[in-house]
Amino acid sequence: MKKILLFCLIMTSPLFAQISRVEPPFWYTGMHKSEVQILFYGKNIAENEVSVSNNIPIKEIKKTENPNYLFVTIDTKNIPAQELLFTFSKNKKTSFTKKYSIKERKTNSSQRKGFDASDVVYLIMSDRFANGNPKNDSDPTVTEKYDRTKPGGRHGGDIAGMIQHLDYIKELGATAIWPTPLCEDNDKAYSYHTYGQSDVYKIDPRFGTNEEYVQLAAELHKRDMKLIMDYVTNHWGAEHWMIKDLPTYDWLHQFPGYAQTNYKMTTQFDSNASKIDAKMCMDGWFVKSMPDLNQSNPLVLNYLIQNAIWWIEYADLDGFRVDTYSYCDKEGISKWTKAITDEYPNFNIVGEVWMHQQAQMAYWQKDSKIGAIQNYNSYLPSVMDFTLHDAVSTVFNENEASWDKGIVKVYDNFTNDFLYPNINNILTFVENHDTMRFNEIYKNDFKKYQMAMTLLATSRGIPQLYYGSEIGMAGNKDKDGDAAIRQDFPGGWKGDTNNAFSASGRTPEQEKFFVFTSKLFQWRKTNDAIHFGKTTHYIPENNVYVYFRHTDKKTVMVVLNNNSKSQTINLARFKENLQNTTSGKSVLDNKTIDLTKELTLEGETAIILELN
Amino acid sequence: MKKILLFCLIMTSPLFAQISRVEPPFWYTGMHKSEVQILFYGKNIAENEVSVSNNIPIKEIKKTENPNYLFVTIDTKNIPAQELLFTFSKNKKTSFTKKYSIKERKTNSSQRKGFDASDVVYLIMSDRFANGNPKNDSDPTVTEKYDRTKPGGRHGGDIAGMIQHLDYIKELGATAIWPTPLCEDNDKAYSYHTYGQSDVYKIDPRFGTNEEYVQLAAELHKRDMKLIMDYVTNHWGAEHWMIKDLPTYDWLHQFPGYAQTNYKMTTQFDSNASKIDAKMCMDGWFVKSMPDLNQSNPLVLNYLIQNAIWWIEYADLDGFRVDTYSYCDKEGISKWTKAITDEYPNFNIVGEVWMHQQAQMAYWQKDSKIGAIQNYNSYLPSVMDFTLHDAVSTVFNENEASWDKGIVKVYDNFTNDFLYPNINNILTFVENHDTMRFNEIYKNDFKKYQMAMTLLATSRGIPQLYYGSEIGMAGNKDKDGDAAIRQDFPGGWKGDTNNAFSASGRTPEQEKFFVFTSKLFQWRKTNDAIHFGKTTHYIPENNVYVYFRHTDKKTVMVVLNNNSKSQTINLARFKENLQNTTSGKSVLDNKTIDLTKELTLEGETAIILELN
Repeated sequence: MKKILLFCLIMTSPLFAQISRVEPPFWYTGMHKSEVQILFYGKNIAENEVSVSNNIPIKEIKKTENPNYLFVTIDTKNIPAQELLFTFSKNKKTSFTKKYSIKERKTNSSQRKGFDASDVVYLIMSDRFANGNPKNDSDPTVTEKYDRTKPGGRHGGDIAGMIQHLDYIKELGATAIWPTPLCEDNDKAYSYHTYGQSDVYKIDPRFGTNEEYVQLAAELHKRDMKLIMDYVTNHWGAEHWMIKDLPTYDWLHQFPGYAQTNYKMTTQFDSNASKIDAKMCMDGWFVKSMPDLNQSNPLVLNYLIQNAIWWIEYADLDGFRVDTYSYCDKEGISKWTKAITDEYPNFNIVGEVWMHQQAQMAYWQKDSKIGAIQNYNSYLPSVMDFTLHDAVSTVFNENEASWDKGIVKVYDNFTNDFLYPNINNILTFVENHDTMRFNEIYKNDFKKYQMAMTLLATSRGIPQLYYGSEIGMAGNKDKDGDAAIRQDFPGGWKGDTNNAFSASGRTPEQEKFFVFTSKLFQWRKTNDAIHFGKTTHYIPENNVYVYFRHTDKKTVMVVLNNNSKSQTINLARFKENLQNTTSGKSVLDNKTIDLTKELTLEGETAIILELN
Repeated sequence: MKKILLFCLIMTSPLFAQISRVEPPFWYTGMHKSEVQILFYGKNIAENEVSVSNNIPIKEIKKTENPNYLFVTIDTKNIPAQELLFTFSKNKKTSFTKKYSIKERKTNSSQRKGFDASDVVYLIMSDRFANGNPKNDSDPTVTEKYDRTKPGGRHGGDIAGMIQHLDYIKELGATAIWPTPLCEDNDKAYSYHTYGQSDVYKIDPRFGTNEEYVQLAAELHKRDMKLIMDYVTNHWGAEHWMIKDLPTYDWLHQFPGYAQTNYKMTTQFDSNASKIDAKMCMDGWFVKSMPDLNQSNPLVLNYLIQNAIWWIEYADLDGFRVDTYSYCDKEGISKWTKAITDEYPNFNIVGEVWMHQQAQMAYWQKDSKIGAIQNYNSYLPSVMDFTLHDAVSTVFNENEASWDKGIVKVYDNFTNDFLYPNINNILTFVENHDTMRFNEIYKNDFKKYQMAMTLLATSRGIPQLYYGSEIGMAGNKDKDGDAAIRQDFPGGWKGDTNNAFSASGRTPEQEKFFVFTSKLFQWRKTNDAIHFGKTTHYIPENNVYVYFRHTDKKTVMVVLNNNSKSQTINLARFKENLQNTTSGKSVLDNKTIDLTKELTLEGETAIILELN
């Protein structure tokens, strides 16, 4: 009965019927790009004339083949914050009106500083970290309900859970969080990963509210920490409201029948690639449930740009991580990225460019000389170091070195750093939410974990941790699929017997992992030679890798012994960096180490030394 | 007794004692760079004043710390060919004189055309191909004598043997030969490879004479074929006459004790590399018996430039292959290469840059955008496609494909072609004198050989064959060392029971290999879409790789089925290249193949179709 009543209301109330969506829901004054294109959605809304109050100029009114959409562009140049009134009329008679706010920006909003190599990013699988508010687990407005028994179900992790554990993340030494997408994903099932969003202006109610998201940012900032939003430009979910009533046919890449991407990203620069392969990579859908957005359609592109900017302003963001970056329309995504960085020159955006050669990844970083071969500039400030990840995933089992096995693979990765236009601004990681768990590969071998984390904490770039690494969480993706690498963090759910968020709740094994990780990354905060110093490294000998990070004032020496047995290295070879140093401080135990002649390291250990 | 007499003669005859070497032995008029720096070598020669006849200007007289050398630079600008007389005098009294010829160049010498993608290069291990003149096997002027029983001994292959078998090489379809170095290598033992040269102005007497080398070029040119000299800039042999009486201490890279290169060529561009690693790569010796030349010494550099140019003029060369290119002084080798290509703008030089990533190899090609990241230009026209070699060495055993296994590895190699500034000018090969024999890896599997050769013959670049591939020669380098891959060509020695140079002498197996290879490369000569056409390729599906080579007028389609089982491909996918074609001619058997719908290929077969 209630439903029928609601239905009647919708059908009869003219105001409600005529405008059911306005996006962006409000805008800001004083933007670098002062024009904003406002989408008004309502039944046959395009039959109306539009005007706006306060002498604001309407630059363009764009109608599409779907009469339910009107795209109205106004110019906010030099106007103060104010309430506008849009009037929709037919035959000079007002049909209805709509208020629209132009708000004040946060002071210095345009100069906001993004995350950088002084940060450590903590990646959270939002549904699987902590269920801070069990009341929102099964919201009535969305289809899939809470079911923690399903590996691919909604487990209830939420923003409240994140907020409750920011001190834990801070204690760990991370300075920024990257939660997987938080906007509404109303897929009927398997929606927990939230990469198939159904409303990109609204936090998924199972994660919380828009206001809670703003609070998350504020709580982070209070702790000198940063918030990175996981933004998806390539696709939306099939349940997105606009997909169900497309503004234009070409809002999406459409094919006769369904067409999937070939996932062959090299086609985007391969000068030999057939046109059809390149097109199918870019325009084919990532999966069937995620319609592929057409960023070459200016309306789509502008929608995505404004949506991204809106979140930066609204939630006071510190960065984006962009999903499936190189699957987007190549020119479109470059324009999207440029528009955002034009608006926020110091903002940081890291794109997922999952390739296996440095030259191919470097292609996509802003001002790449490799991209320039084809006159391409993505404007993307940061990419991910997938080749380092590739190396790290095998190297610690290679205790017997050869010319292409063992720690030399890590060294080799860094030999190509010159290919990147900005090597300090690449995201480094040993695992993320799409890869095999590090501790699965290495069977929770603590020595190997210590070596990997030492490498991650001390090599160039922005280290990214994946929730649970730090307590030894494992999981076999090959065997059990994504659920295996996205398990619930112990202690995030009421009634969890193991609470890894507190020292007292951790098992001895978890505590061992956590204490090491926390000590390492807390130390990392203190040393700017690690953040922005130059790297000098030496060709590994006998599977031992030695490198230095240094500024004019500070030098850090790192030694990784990837042998199972102890090794003694002659220090004379490193004179270039050691200079007249005679000792160094081992940063994890404060011991003073003699550096006059030789250094002996136990098998599979690493040492970080601040030179005296 | 004879020796004593000779010794007395040397010590007493003033002319002989004073000038025992003049290099270059003569020069040419009308060179782009008109100055030539003539090295005069003789006991205390530097004590003399020098003058030259015919009003030729002496630009510079350079003395070094060793009084036995004088480097005299004259300018030959606008002078006709003539005989000059150099006069050496002390206290205005003539000590002795020396005639010096300035010769006429061959017409259009400066415009000589090097080898290119219309060629097929046949690489010959000079000592192991054919012993055309057994009389020169053990020359009295050099130490190591003929011993065919030793795998690493001198086997007697020579220039006469090459000349005798040029028709064989031509029949095979090759259009150029690259013999391994032919200049004198007077090492006491293991000198057969000749990379440790002891006199770079003289053909090793066991290979023949300078005149025979000139004849080799002439015989090649008579057949419309080309001669590529294997030039070694990085090092000489320890027995080089100059090494025994160094002009300057820094003629070589010298160290306290012996220092070997670390072979880590990435240090040459790695922005993180320690200075000492980069220096040791470049300056360390390749092996102990090969002193490392210091190309940053202008005298050394100039010597190497003039020597190279002298050979081009003297022997009428069509190209260089440069050994260990990226081990040389980085700036020096760039100057060397630029000097030669300034002199001969259409000449071709292929450098051995043995690396395993396309970006790293492309770094070294002339006008590389990757080199330009570091403001480096090697001026090297051509590099070798080692990554294709890497792929080809495993791919044909990968009948079960995955994302990174199977024929996709070959496809992936070509996806990086855009990194090279001149993709048509790279040398492609399935094996050379330093790698495992292809037919060893694949156990003489004829199907795999056919696929590999089809790929080599039809993909972009300049195919290089290695002597003996074409008759199925195998050899396990890992087990038996270099000798295994450098065996004597059957029929090259008097008394060989198996003579693979003629159809009647070949075993049925050899004949099968030869006939196929010859047919393939003879056809290759006829199709310029293969030489310089554009490539369009398609992502392999089910381990089947399809690509096209095309110009405005011609299209060639190539299909490689790397499955063990037969595959049928739907041709609709290739519309972009097939257009309205309904049939093609299979080039190896002249059969007409229907191309309207599907194409079926047996397992592990390839087909080349000229579209009708």
